[in-house]
Amino acid sequence: MNVELINTGSELMLGRTLNTHQQWLCRQLAGLGLVVTRQVAVNDTADTIASITREALGRATLVITTGGLGPTSDDRTREAIAALLGRKLRLDESVLRHIEHYFAARQRVMAESTKVQAMVPEGATVLQNGFGTAPGLVLEISPANPASPRQLLVMLPGPPRELRPMFADQVAPILRQTYPLETALVCRTLKTTGLGESLVEQKIAPSLEPLVQAGLELGYCARIGEVDVHLAARGQQARQRVAEAEQITRTLLGELVFGVDDDTLEAVLVRRLTERKQTLATAESCTGGLIANRITNVPGASVVFWGGLVTYANAAKEKFLDVPAATLAEHGAVSKSVARAMAEGARRRCGTDYALAVTGIAGPSGGTTAKPVGTVFIALATPREIIVKRFLNPFDRETFKWVTSQQALDLLRKNLTR
Amino acid sequence: MNVELINTGSELMLGRTLNTHQQWLCRQLAGLGLVVTRQVAVNDTADTIASITREALGRATLVITTGGLGPTSDDRTREAIAALLGRKLRLDESVLRHIEHYFAARQRVMAESTKVQAMVPEGATVLQNGFGTAPGLVLEISPANPASPRQLLVMLPGPPRELRPMFADQVAPILRQTYPLETALVCRTLKTTGLGESLVEQKIAPSLEPLVQAGLELGYCARIGEVDVHLAARGQQARQRVAEAEQITRTLLGELVFGVDDDTLEAVLVRRLTERKQTLATAESCTGGLIANRITNVPGASVVFWGGLVTYANAAKEKFLDVPAATLAEHGAVSKSVARAMAEGARRRCGTDYALAVTGIAGPSGGTTAKPVGTVFIALATPREIIVKRFLNPFDRETFKWVTSQQALDLLRKNLTR
Repeated sequence: MNVELINTGSELMLGRTLNTHQQWLCRQLAGLGLVVTRQVAVNDTADTIASITREALGRATLVITTGGLGPTSDDRTREAIAALLGRKLRLDESVLRHIEHYFAARQRVMAESTKVQAMVPEGATVLQNGFGTAPGLVLEISPANPASPRQLLVMLPGPPRELRPMFADQVAPILRQTYPLETALVCRTLKTTGLGESLVEQKIAPSLEPLVQAGLELGYCARIGEVDVHLAARGQQARQRVAEAEQITRTLLGELVFGVDDDTLEAVLVRRLTERKQTLATAESCTGGLIANRITNVPGASVVFWGGLVTYANAAKEKFLDVPAATLAEHGAVSKSVARAMAEGARRRCGTDYALAVTGIAGPSGGTTAKPVGTVFIALATPREIIVKRFLNPFDRETFKWVTSQQALDLLRKNLTR
Repeated sequence: MNVELINTGSELMLGRTLNTHQQWLCRQLAGLGLVVTRQVAVNDTADTIASITREALGRATLVITTGGLGPTSDDRTREAIAALLGRKLRLDESVLRHIEHYFAARQRVMAESTKVQAMVPEGATVLQNGFGTAPGLVLEISPANPASPRQLLVMLPGPPRELRPMFADQVAPILRQTYPLETALVCRTLKTTGLGESLVEQKIAPSLEPLVQAGLELGYCARIGEVDVHLAARGQQARQRVAEAEQITRTLLGELVFGVDDDTLEAVLVRRLTERKQTLATAESCTGGLIANRITNVPGASVVFWGGLVTYANAAKEKFLDVPAATLAEHGAVSKSVARAMAEGARRRCGTDYALAVTGIAGPSGGTTAKPVGTVFIALATPREIIVKRFLNPFDRETFKWVTSQQALDLLRKNLTR
């Protein structure tokens, strides 16, 4: 069965926007046993959208489009596809009420043009938009051959925060029902941090080889500061095979594995601290608030996270963390002694069980021979001790911050398992 | 002139890898006046690569492929395209020496299979790979019509750190020479915040209509808390037309426009504060460090950013910002009075010219009828006054944090223009 994905938008063709829909949707669809056979991005003129959709419907059983459902004049998908399929557009009162309510709830003025989003092609199933105004649409195309599987065209809005829940909550159930899996695909992702992709592979691939020979799908995905190990199998023994592979991987990688599937390091940390009824404070120099930001992205973080100090200036390290001026003068702000004093000061001032502190040189300037750009000291104050580690993360500024936050969160995670 | 981009790889179709090539290459090509008309991602089997390349060559003057040039069994592009075009593969001695040297310099053993990367199709121009082993290839396809522009097929390796320098240093010069710009494409993006996409359009589209009729390309891109207005034109009067459109847009949108092209709100702020030799501190509750994180993403932020307090717990607001316990008890942590006290306390404690403070309910829980989830108070303390604004941002947790950080940064930006 062919599955095609069409992403529209001139911002894609001009390289102004990164197309994150491809990865996200391909991954979701693969999880439903529907592997995308072709993904296309094109400009958002009505002619182009119509012709690319006609092409795709000529090949694929399932076609999904993204973008072009909004209210502005460059949102052409709804009209172009309705015209292509000869379906009339009619005003859907319930969609219109949803849009009016959306604006009213936010005390915002609704432009007249907004109403175009309530126009729905004949015979379409409307997908409610819980996070915006443009509804998604599902059209069933009459199959040429009644014996073949039903052909669906799904139109999704462009903004990821609208598209993702709409797909997960409304489209996935339709697809599961329309294209039931003959044999279930069993997937498991193990999330690791602390080792590069090829070293992870070197550690586990030889031991997993017999399972791969027996049909296990083994894949790796390297992210910044993380490597995902994907395990998947189909058929009768799928569940058993994936479980066996997980067991082998966990034994070989040990505490490098921090979670599964959609776990994040910060969510794992908040969960562990909550279970242990313990609290955390942060003291950040070079990461500039990123660690606190990641922790507070987790719902329920307020139970364990007391607060954080972003002490960018040296005077801030003295004032809010009691780092002695003499220590700063003698060792420099980026030093083991200052990291230690920051963690100690944060734990004492905030009265928490743990405090994480980081100080380093994010760059692009500020490096020296002894402490090049990318040098970072990470300290963890616990009820028993203060641990300080030195790392070298010679990356661009934002990557440096991310990798450093990952190392800091991981230092605490490993401590919490003991 | 049609330009097509083909990305190959099963990891793309399974959603295991984010396709960053599309954005990067589309942007580079647009800068050369070569706007990509179609981008396709497909699996990396030889049959698929051959058929998708045949299709593309039937439409486009320039076709670029990425991936499939490496040494492993799933690298099929070189062979598939040589077979499609009936070009023999022959061993290129200089490429082989480069590969042997690459391994020798790294004291690594070279697998026999590596040599396949030195096989070059007849008539191909070899692109040296400065960061890996697989060379890129440029093939000139005989044009059916000698009067039409030369048709090129460019094959690039998959790893971004190999592809990017190869394109910039070797492919771009070839393209500049082969397809000289007759008339430059002039582009300008105006970055706005504070109004939704359809209201932005409503404000500017009618006045820009005469220019659109005369060939101005006008587009919108809605991001979270931002709307980009894209202006572009070609031909003799392109520069003048885009300048005129920018002038009209700026007049109509006024201070909603915060920057151009790749500007971010935080970079604009850091720039303005640097020019004014002024300093900033932040006091964040519900945004949890995101505002400080965004500011410290900007190189040079340390000149203007003194530090930030992430006062998640009420006790943290008292301890680090001197928010009176009575104010917290009487009005609640999410209130105008507390926001004001936070900004005032941060400015005084940190000794900065400005302090930004936010307190709100990120959700998913914690809302009441009077203060539903999404309620936020943002305060700005300046040398002259304290401004407090109330917003309602009823979104998921991360979107709430982003929109709130955007509103806070924008409150300061607008103040700095006065």
